[in-house]
Amino acid sequence: MAKAKQRLSKRTYQARARVLRAQLVQLQLELKQAPFKVLLILAGPEGAGRGNLLNTLAEWLDPRGVETFSYHAPTDNERAHPHQWRFWRSLPGIGRIGLYAGSWYTETLREEARSARALHHIAEESERIRHFEKLLADGGTLIVKVWLHLSKSAQGRRLRTLRADPATAWRVTEEDWQHHRNYDRLDRTARLIREKTHRHGARWTVIDAEDERTRDLRVGQLLLAQFRRQQQRFARLKQPTGRTAVEPLRPSGLRRLHALPLDQDLSEKDYDSLREKWLGRLSRAVRATLAADRSIVLAFEGWDAAGKGGAIRRLTSAIDPRDYRVIPVAKPTPEEKHAHYLWRFWRDIPRNGRMTIFDRSWYGRVLVERLEGFCRPEEWRRAFAEINDFERELTDHGTIVLKFWLHVSHAEQLRRFRERESTPHKRHKMNEEDWRNRRKRGAYEIAVGDMLALTDTANAPWRLVPADNKRFARLEVLRSASRHLEAALEV
Amino acid sequence: MAKAKQRLSKRTYQARARVLRAQLVQLQLELKQAPFKVLLILAGPEGAGRGNLLNTLAEWLDPRGVETFSYHAPTDNERAHPHQWRFWRSLPGIGRIGLYAGSWYTETLREEARSARALHHIAEESERIRHFEKLLADGGTLIVKVWLHLSKSAQGRRLRTLRADPATAWRVTEEDWQHHRNYDRLDRTARLIREKTHRHGARWTVIDAEDERTRDLRVGQLLLAQFRRQQQRFARLKQPTGRTAVEPLRPSGLRRLHALPLDQDLSEKDYDSLREKWLGRLSRAVRATLAADRSIVLAFEGWDAAGKGGAIRRLTSAIDPRDYRVIPVAKPTPEEKHAHYLWRFWRDIPRNGRMTIFDRSWYGRVLVERLEGFCRPEEWRRAFAEINDFERELTDHGTIVLKFWLHVSHAEQLRRFRERESTPHKRHKMNEEDWRNRRKRGAYEIAVGDMLALTDTANAPWRLVPADNKRFARLEVLRSASRHLEAALEV
Repeated sequence: MAKAKQRLSKRTYQARARVLRAQLVQLQLELKQAPFKVLLILAGPEGAGRGNLLNTLAEWLDPRGVETFSYHAPTDNERAHPHQWRFWRSLPGIGRIGLYAGSWYTETLREEARSARALHHIAEESERIRHFEKLLADGGTLIVKVWLHLSKSAQGRRLRTLRADPATAWRVTEEDWQHHRNYDRLDRTARLIREKTHRHGARWTVIDAEDERTRDLRVGQLLLAQFRRQQQRFARLKQPTGRTAVEPLRPSGLRRLHALPLDQDLSEKDYDSLREKWLGRLSRAVRATLAADRSIVLAFEGWDAAGKGGAIRRLTSAIDPRDYRVIPVAKPTPEEKHAHYLWRFWRDIPRNGRMTIFDRSWYGRVLVERLEGFCRPEEWRRAFAEINDFERELTDHGTIVLKFWLHVSHAEQLRRFRERESTPHKRHKMNEEDWRNRRKRGAYEIAVGDMLALTDTANAPWRLVPADNKRFARLEVLRSASRHLEAALEV
Repeated sequence: MAKAKQRLSKRTYQARARVLRAQLVQLQLELKQAPFKVLLILAGPEGAGRGNLLNTLAEWLDPRGVETFSYHAPTDNERAHPHQWRFWRSLPGIGRIGLYAGSWYTETLREEARSARALHHIAEESERIRHFEKLLADGGTLIVKVWLHLSKSAQGRRLRTLRADPATAWRVTEEDWQHHRNYDRLDRTARLIREKTHRHGARWTVIDAEDERTRDLRVGQLLLAQFRRQQQRFARLKQPTGRTAVEPLRPSGLRRLHALPLDQDLSEKDYDSLREKWLGRLSRAVRATLAADRSIVLAFEGWDAAGKGGAIRRLTSAIDPRDYRVIPVAKPTPEEKHAHYLWRFWRDIPRNGRMTIFDRSWYGRVLVERLEGFCRPEEWRRAFAEINDFERELTDHGTIVLKFWLHVSHAEQLRRFRERESTPHKRHKMNEEDWRNRRKRGAYEIAVGDMLALTDTANAPWRLVPADNKRFARLEVLRSASRHLEAALEV
């Protein structure tokens, strides 16, 4: 059996810890002003001392800038949402440090890489984690991942020492011994996961955990070093340059938009009877979907004054108010602006058996943010794939996702703008921005075209709704939604 | 059978709605700047049209300033928290309107006032609601409560008319007919609840719901009128006047504080062995408590540099990191400042089987906020009872609540301040405010004394911890916590 390694003397440890603590306090001061957050993920076998390390870090750092996370098995409520939901909702804010004693790795790390089937599952989960961490890292988050290495013999020594002293024996549980017996298999799983999730922006660092003092110092120093590197990365980053000429990425979407006929006609009488018919059908489809414990996400996008609000109100008039929420998406609040652009949408994702209707959505990233230069070109370009991943997470969970683009002609929009301006109770809906956006119709059409071409997926399709005729548009939304739900239920 | 009442003509309705909508839009503009929020609670029998009314209001109001609520039966996660938790966490922000199609009334309104037992339960729930609404109203929230009255015969007519038309028959469910049959009993319950919860700041208004047009207009007008009255109330309100002379409300607490001996001694060796012993005992007690699906709330208060952080870290070293969260309580963020002072603490209340440790707490209301004049005298005076109610809600649910006051002498505090200032990694813990608070020791002692005298309840007691000797204090916290949990489990 290998011998225990040399321990760092208490005196040397204290001297080094003093220097490190002052540096960490300085780090936190700078982080508070920095445009990013830090996630420190701690993983390792039982006895590697995640708990103690967490306590040491809590002592070294100013607790007001730190959040600590550790996850139990998911609760019923968490299981009723897509897998990533619980991690999204607890991400720390910008300028803060998240310490993860448990994380999105915890569940997968418990599996044993024995069968081909288990290996396949581990590979799949690792791939999900890669995507999630890429998204965060691309969004500017610093992800520091530490594997606390403890050899099997060192683990055994630690457990036996604790057990030998009556004052500390309570710290050793039967589960610890079980992990010790399974050390090799768990270690193989962990290696595999680390290999598959070691990537630029989210690298693993293995730190020997046998000597607690050395371990604590090295984790602190790693955090410092990676923080400095992240600062340099941000210093080199160019700020968004504002508006640029808009070129389509994929012209087919624009052609599809222009090919949409807008001259539908529908009498009030026909509308009234058809509306009740389709409301009934939608009501049944929604109730059946929710009763099957599935969730529904509808996203409404469209030109200003295209009638999104009216279409949503007709649709919800068929649904039990307890079952749905309408989320009007306005400019982000300061808190939201500091988070990843998808964060606020994750927050409102419905649980199984519920429905969320977004009045405007995450597509703002590739529409207004692209055109107004609120994000850098590489950011909105990346967003198409990120959005497809996001919607895939939802539909993989079983959520039904449908997106509407309400399309009005330039002339009809003008008529509605003027009507709004001359109606006292509608005037508040109009402002200078609406007129400004209207003048940029050409550029917006290109962005809408790219959106349709790049995010119209089989699992989360777009429905283009001709909306010059309000009655027709409202009916079309009811019809599309009913049919989509009915089809999804039959699969 | 009574005849249907005269309907308002469409033409008159539209003319009045136009005026009302312009006024409501104006209301929302003013509300955005106002220091309060508005809750509009809608209740009434099936068929009274809460859903339709909600849709109309959604059309009239600017959706960006409105949140709509409606509650299903509580989820597992909600049941694992104290009853009020789900209502607290979804309260709208200041300057916004919350529309409640379902509310804290919904469950109780479903009961039938038949047996003495049911009557007793209804009375109890009504009392809870009174307290909750008093708290909100006292905190400045405008609560508008509408009972949509629909007679039994009008309800029957409405259901039959809908059923007769194939296009609308789907709107009538078996549940609706059942409610119709039970009309009288449900109506008696509703009357009882309304009587018991009709109070200043949260009055019920009964509005006839038979004619939908009249109903919608009257609800809109009621909202307007009550909003204006609330504005006038706030205009008359004096701003906090800043510091005032501090007089004790109840001198017994101050005497208790002064009587605490602070000259404990404890060698490092004795401490080490006692610590491990008590950590083991605490670990067992915590695990047993959480395994019994109960939750634990510990609150730490004390003088600056009294050693709260250190005591908390020793305590948590015995607990599985997945089971607890430490919440450091700093100055409220802008979002928190705009909410009720208890809101941010409700947010972090643990679910069953979990533990939250507050490093500083809701007692800031009667300490720093009282002394620095951040709230009006009537506000901090009211807070003692509000806090007792709050803690009672927790312990009624089964949560174990324990509060620590860490007491250091004026001289020992000075020694620690100086040591902090001369240690590089501790310097960030000190600022001018700490010195300022120190100079006000006398006034703070009075506030602490009142706190001890007025909020040391049997269900949520205070433990006074002598903390001049850090080791003694840490041990004392472990001992008190262990014993309190053990005693609570035996009951």
